[in-house]
Amino acid sequence: MALSEFELIRQLSDGLGATRAEVLLGVGDDAALVDVGQPEALCVCVDTMIAGVHFPLDAPADSVGHKILAVNLSDLAAMGARPAWALLALTLPGPDQAWLDGFRRGLSALAAEHRVAVIGGDTTRGALSISLTLAGWVEPAQALRRGGARPDDLVFVSGSLGDAAAGLRLWQAGRVGQNGAAELADRLHRPQPRVALGRALRGLATAAIDVSDGLAADLGHILAASGVGAAIDLSALPLSEALRRGCGDAEAAVLALSGGDDYELCFTVPPEREPEVQAISRELGLPLTCIGRIDAEPGLRVLGPGGRHLPLARAGYDHFGRSA
Amino acid sequence: MALSEFELIRQLSDGLGATRAEVLLGVGDDAALVDVGQPEALCVCVDTMIAGVHFPLDAPADSVGHKILAVNLSDLAAMGARPAWALLALTLPGPDQAWLDGFRRGLSALAAEHRVAVIGGDTTRGALSISLTLAGWVEPAQALRRGGARPDDLVFVSGSLGDAAAGLRLWQAGRVGQNGAAELADRLHRPQPRVALGRALRGLATAAIDVSDGLAADLGHILAASGVGAAIDLSALPLSEALRRGCGDAEAAVLALSGGDDYELCFTVPPEREPEVQAISRELGLPLTCIGRIDAEPGLRVLGPGGRHLPLARAGYDHFGRSA
Repeated sequence: MALSEFELIRQLSDGLGATRAEVLLGVGDDAALVDVGQPEALCVCVDTMIAGVHFPLDAPADSVGHKILAVNLSDLAAMGARPAWALLALTLPGPDQAWLDGFRRGLSALAAEHRVAVIGGDTTRGALSISLTLAGWVEPAQALRRGGARPDDLVFVSGSLGDAAAGLRLWQAGRVGQNGAAELADRLHRPQPRVALGRALRGLATAAIDVSDGLAADLGHILAASGVGAAIDLSALPLSEALRRGCGDAEAAVLALSGGDDYELCFTVPPEREPEVQAISRELGLPLTCIGRIDAEPGLRVLGPGGRHLPLARAGYDHFGRSA
Repeated sequence: MALSEFELIRQLSDGLGATRAEVLLGVGDDAALVDVGQPEALCVCVDTMIAGVHFPLDAPADSVGHKILAVNLSDLAAMGARPAWALLALTLPGPDQAWLDGFRRGLSALAAEHRVAVIGGDTTRGALSISLTLAGWVEPAQALRRGGARPDDLVFVSGSLGDAAAGLRLWQAGRVGQNGAAELADRLHRPQPRVALGRALRGLATAAIDVSDGLAADLGHILAASGVGAAIDLSALPLSEALRRGCGDAEAAVLALSGGDDYELCFTVPPEREPEVQAISRELGLPLTCIGRIDAEPGLRVLGPGGRHLPLARAGYDHFGRSA
């Protein structure tokens, strides 16, 4: 039987290595937490991008440099952590000065914006791939985890969903000149990690995750970790104008539900604290949309027109080819 | 002009990202040092292994799991650090239960031996490669760096050199049944990181590096960082019986000088402290061999029979194909 990526990760990591008292949170959330004797814990994650899988082979070099840091910043954002430093492992088919210059430029600009120091690295020869380890800081009691969602909590997502998946389609079809396509391709190539939002949600959100594999899959991780279920309203999913124009409403909703690479945050908040979410949205100038509600029945239910349950045909992207 | 790997790494890392006061040592040594408000600094490194480059495509899965941790432990050993926790980024062509079981077994056994917790990971699909980030602890003032060698210091190496390079040749030639070949292949597949030696050398060695790219190349990094030179005696290089039997003395010396993957430590010590090195050798049951002496003239000189200077035809292994 083929294993899904999630199962692979669980198998690989389950009880791997020694147990150490300072590890407050290990494999299974957006990042790990390690006590180093300070009020804040070290918050660390690693993400790899493979050319042709996580970015198109012809993606601009600066966008690849931007994105490898952005996807890791997104993991720290989902923990409420402030980023600090990174190590870079870069595998290249051969030395390519122009590509490296672009890669450096994209990575440096985002690193400067978030004050991330690159303190180490390794360069090897092989098929193009990049792995980045990012460390930051967050108070352990305030860290946003996946397992704290409770029945009646409201489910929110930031920004808009589905844009990156649509951008990938248009990029692959060579339709980058089309109306709105540049905006969608930009969402694909230069995701904006929601670090400020993650910081603002400390002490407010009961659970959080970043939307990297698609909303249905990633919200599913919150539900599984929290031992709850949720009903979300398909018509409530935040769709950009560019996505609606590019795909039409029906297709746009499918991409918003199951398309990957958006790097928005999905989080849950007790209903009485909704006004605080709205205040954060205004302060950050970032839409935060309520898309549904947590309940006690396990699983994710998607409600279409008239409150009908829709089948979840494709819950999310799985690198090893099985739907979650 | 083709860039060497060393040049690539320098270019990639030079001034990449923000400057942060807590970074005590960034790119350019075996590992980075980060102040986290404790007497010991966090010591972190990353190393990547690509199938077919850093290990044979048909290497036993457990040896791959062992080696990805071993090469990183070797980097921490070269800093004098005690290892603590790791993050694993694994790229696989597809799910392969038997391979994963073996990989886990090899990694877990070495992690247990060195009390390393694996606290996070990422699994992706692509050509087989593994990147591991390892963190440990060392007092910043006692950390072994590359830049402290001074004229008259003695140059030492641990264990024996050239075995892994010979093991690779025999493995690739399918001559694993040959007399001594299993021992050499074991040096290739299951290097023993010199963590205890690194710890013992704190406050004693003036400079240290692990021998991953070949003695000439790696000692060359110490010389360059320290602004000194060295003369080493070819006949003093420690050769194993298996290597002498497998290759003959002349070929063995070449492999000891320029073969990679040994993961021994090369370090420098003031001459008056040589007895302390011998005491450590006895305590650890590990040969520590004096192979030469630091001097003020830049560059590495290899002395053959009768004190003749030998040309350094191939100083070390460069992943991008140019000799250093």
